[in-house]
Amino acid sequence: MISLSLVDAADLVGGSVEGEFFPAITGINTLVKAGENEISFLANQRYKDDLSTCQAAAVLLSEHEENTSGCCVIRVADPYLAFARLQRYFHPELKASGLRHSSAVIDPSANLADDVDVGAHAVIGAQVCVDAGSRIGSGCVLGDHVSIGKHCLLHVNVVVGRSCILKDGVIVQPGAVIGSDGFGYAWDGQQHLKIPQVGRVVLEEGVEIGANTCIDCGAIGDTVIERGVKLDNQIQIAHNVRVGAFTVMASQVGVSGSTDIGSGCQFGGQAGIAGHLKIGDGCKLAGQTGVLGDLEAGGVYGGSPALPYQLWLKVSALTKKLPELWKSRNR
Amino acid sequence: MISLSLVDAADLVGGSVEGEFFPAITGINTLVKAGENEISFLANQRYKDDLSTCQAAAVLLSEHEENTSGCCVIRVADPYLAFARLQRYFHPELKASGLRHSSAVIDPSANLADDVDVGAHAVIGAQVCVDAGSRIGSGCVLGDHVSIGKHCLLHVNVVVGRSCILKDGVIVQPGAVIGSDGFGYAWDGQQHLKIPQVGRVVLEEGVEIGANTCIDCGAIGDTVIERGVKLDNQIQIAHNVRVGAFTVMASQVGVSGSTDIGSGCQFGGQAGIAGHLKIGDGCKLAGQTGVLGDLEAGGVYGGSPALPYQLWLKVSALTKKLPELWKSRNR
Amino acid sequence: MISLSLVDAADLVGGSVEGEFFPAITGINTLVKAGENEISFLANQRYKDDLSTCQAAAVLLSEHEENTSGCCVIRVADPYLAFARLQRYFHPELKASGLRHSSAVIDPSANLADDVDVGAHAVIGAQVCVDAGSRIGSGCVLGDHVSIGKHCLLHVNVVVGRSCILKDGVIVQPGAVIGSDGFGYAWDGQQHLKIPQVGRVVLEEGVEIGANTCIDCGAIGDTVIERGVKLDNQIQIAHNVRVGAFTVMASQVGVSGSTDIGSGCQFGGQAGIAGHLKIGDGCKLAGQTGVLGDLEAGGVYGGSPALPYQLWLKVSALTKKLPELWKSRNR
Repeated sequence: MISLSLVDAADLVGGSVEGEFFPAITGINTLVKAGENEISFLANQRYKDDLSTCQAAAVLLSEHEENTSGCCVIRVADPYLAFARLQRYFHPELKASGLRHSSAVIDPSANLADDVDVGAHAVIGAQVCVDAGSRIGSGCVLGDHVSIGKHCLLHVNVVVGRSCILKDGVIVQPGAVIGSDGFGYAWDGQQHLKIPQVGRVVLEEGVEIGANTCIDCGAIGDTVIERGVKLDNQIQIAHNVRVGAFTVMASQVGVSGSTDIGSGCQFGGQAGIAGHLKIGDGCKLAGQTGVLGDLEAGGVYGGSPALPYQLWLKVSALTKKLPELWKSRNR
Repeated sequence: MISLSLVDAADLVGGSVEGEFFPAITGINTLVKAGENEISFLANQRYKDDLSTCQAAAVLLSEHEENTSGCCVIRVADPYLAFARLQRYFHPELKASGLRHSSAVIDPSANLADDVDVGAHAVIGAQVCVDAGSRIGSGCVLGDHVSIGKHCLLHVNVVVGRSCILKDGVIVQPGAVIGSDGFGYAWDGQQHLKIPQVGRVVLEEGVEIGANTCIDCGAIGDTVIERGVKLDNQIQIAHNVRVGAFTVMASQVGVSGSTDIGSGCQFGGQAGIAGHLKIGDGCKLAGQTGVLGDLEAGGVYGGSPALPYQLWLKVSALTKKLPELWKSRNR
Repeated sequence: MISLSLVDAADLVGGSVEGEFFPAITGINTLVKAGENEISFLANQRYKDDLSTCQAAAVLLSEHEENTSGCCVIRVADPYLAFARLQRYFHPELKASGLRHSSAVIDPSANLADDVDVGAHAVIGAQVCVDAGSRIGSGCVLGDHVSIGKHCLLHVNVVVGRSCILKDGVIVQPGAVIGSDGFGYAWDGQQHLKIPQVGRVVLEEGVEIGANTCIDCGAIGDTVIERGVKLDNQIQIAHNVRVGAFTVMASQVGVSGSTDIGSGCQFGGQAGIAGHLKIGDGCKLAGQTGVLGDLEAGGVYGGSPALPYQLWLKVSALTKKLPELWKSRNR
């Protein structure tokens, strides 16, 4: 069992200790549930009232937060980040160990580093490369010519289409589909003629893809998810989209084809972005926002069609008063 | 072939017969399609006109519904419920019979009751428990330490992550992911640091989960779907959400992290609920509603951002008249 | 390697050549990326500026488009259609060749044409029929009594429920679920009683289904997707819906139960349609449209709840001016 002294915990998160606690810390828990050998944290003011009754060994608090609990305190600049660091200490990633289940079907031409794990009933196609430290879960299907970098983790039942590229440290949650055909047809007067989708998907370093999320391969050229991007569950990224580095999208977002999304953007759940648009770096979208035009860098938006966030708040407040407004018009 | 006399059918649904019909009833069908040995039903007034031309042996009608057909009638308090009961009679659930396909990979430490079925290419991890009468479909992957109760049905290609708990009578449709990682990161100044998601998902008695729906495991502590909850397809439930007993959600709803949803709620399709909220018992949301704040018990809402339902209807009606309103302002 | 002369390329797309180019054409690429042996095309005026710097052998241009590049031109009525035709020439579909992976589990009672391919770990149930030229990908699960027509392509990890019918030329992307249970319950005073969903899904000729899209089987009778319909990723089609021929839906659309959708409709992403409605032929919906009532044929709509498109544009423009309108009221 992993444990840590209070002082070492403070060291690990770059914090300073207030109070003394000598037994070993054995884990982290919420303010409500933390027991006497656990650390807790206050990172969201909604939960502030829980602090006073907290039974933890210690709590992670920001510099100016009053300690209303009887616990020791580790003062840190960012309690949530400190929580993340401690949680990673207590729950280290599993390491690949070269386990290949006998039921996995691995094409003889595939090239897997010695320590790569492959789960039961996984299928690995021709000319696939998987680099050191990566783990391929049960039921995953990797098409021909797929390339997987170092220390990737493909959870179970993940699909990666032919020729797609996953760089180092990529994580893919269960059921995600990387490299489905883009939605491209031309009407020939009688029917929608399917256009072969011959591009790839490229997931750069440190990308994480949520459960049942779909990323279409490019029609021509690639769909590119740049380094450090985090996509939640059930997101749809259409063909030839670029998602800039470190952008984060909450679940059920949809991005239409050929749209170019900048770096460091944050999209709320169920937001939708039309095709062929340019979304600048650092844009933020509220949940369910509908974007129909280009957005300049750093903008914040809400509503469908999207409005600047402050205007959207104002408009939403006034929308409620439409009955009043309508009456006053008839006066 | 299962059959039933008219009188026995009426008994089964607690109804009374008007008219006489002696051959065996062999099934149920719609007003339009029911043949002379089938029962039909009128449960939605949209289909009332089809009654007059109905060719069924008998129709299930509510107490005061006029019988415009030439069919026999079974009078019942709730024709839809009566239809459900009869349909369950004609289509009883398959029983588990202990069939284990030879291609299934079952860890030797797993503990399966004798009659548990396991389909082809299913994967069952270490220390998994599956109780009597449960059926695990082809291609399902159950992580280590998963616990499945009695008489559960996991359709094909279902994923259940490590340590998740499914209590008695849970049904999971194909492609659903129970226990994907929650979407939790802390920005460390350079990148989004992944926070290990160490909680579980608990699906209580009688829960049903739709196809390709995703339920994230808790970050700390559990994501809990209480007894009798029914979730349609492609729903996203984020980490540490609680969904109260008997709540029903239509497809493509998204619920963000740590939100607490009461019992007996009904959410229309594509509704979205922000994180860390409290939704009271019995709340109803129209389709595409966007909820950004706590909701009191029993409320009915529509729109994005959500408004009380009657106000939303009024506002929607007046929104159409904005051009008129704008003109009158310039008068 | 497939190649083509410029003259043959023009013939193939019914166009006329301007200029001379004698080496072989080896493929198609974008205006920006096309090399000296590739053809490019201008099908979207957004990319017009890229024409002047294009390095392709030739470009596909519509009749009146000015050729600002130094390339040869193939004049065509519809450059996008011509692009599609050429791309299909350069990337012909793979042919089925009767490969059956030894790990596939095929019920002895299944009836597969000689040339049908079956991928690794696929599962094919009792009495399944698969006609000539069809390919079943790795990890697919076909329930009992499924019927698959000629020249179908089921990508990997596709689920087809018992008795569903896929006619000739159907394509299904990875992770799609055809024939999940419809969402049907009757409240019995204590719980939601599950209604057995005994209908099928019928996908007619030439239908394509996107990745992780779900189509529920009918409650009674069938859910029918008529010929030539194209559904993008993550779409939800509920029980007993009919989607008329050649209708196209972008990703994340949701259609509720028993709704009847006409032919030749086009729905933008994330649109939602309530249940038991009638949507006429040729209707168009903007992304995120919410439809709560019947729509007449040929209508164009946007907004939630849906408004006629031109009114929606006007209303959206005026919504931004609500603060101004509100102020003027207080004057």
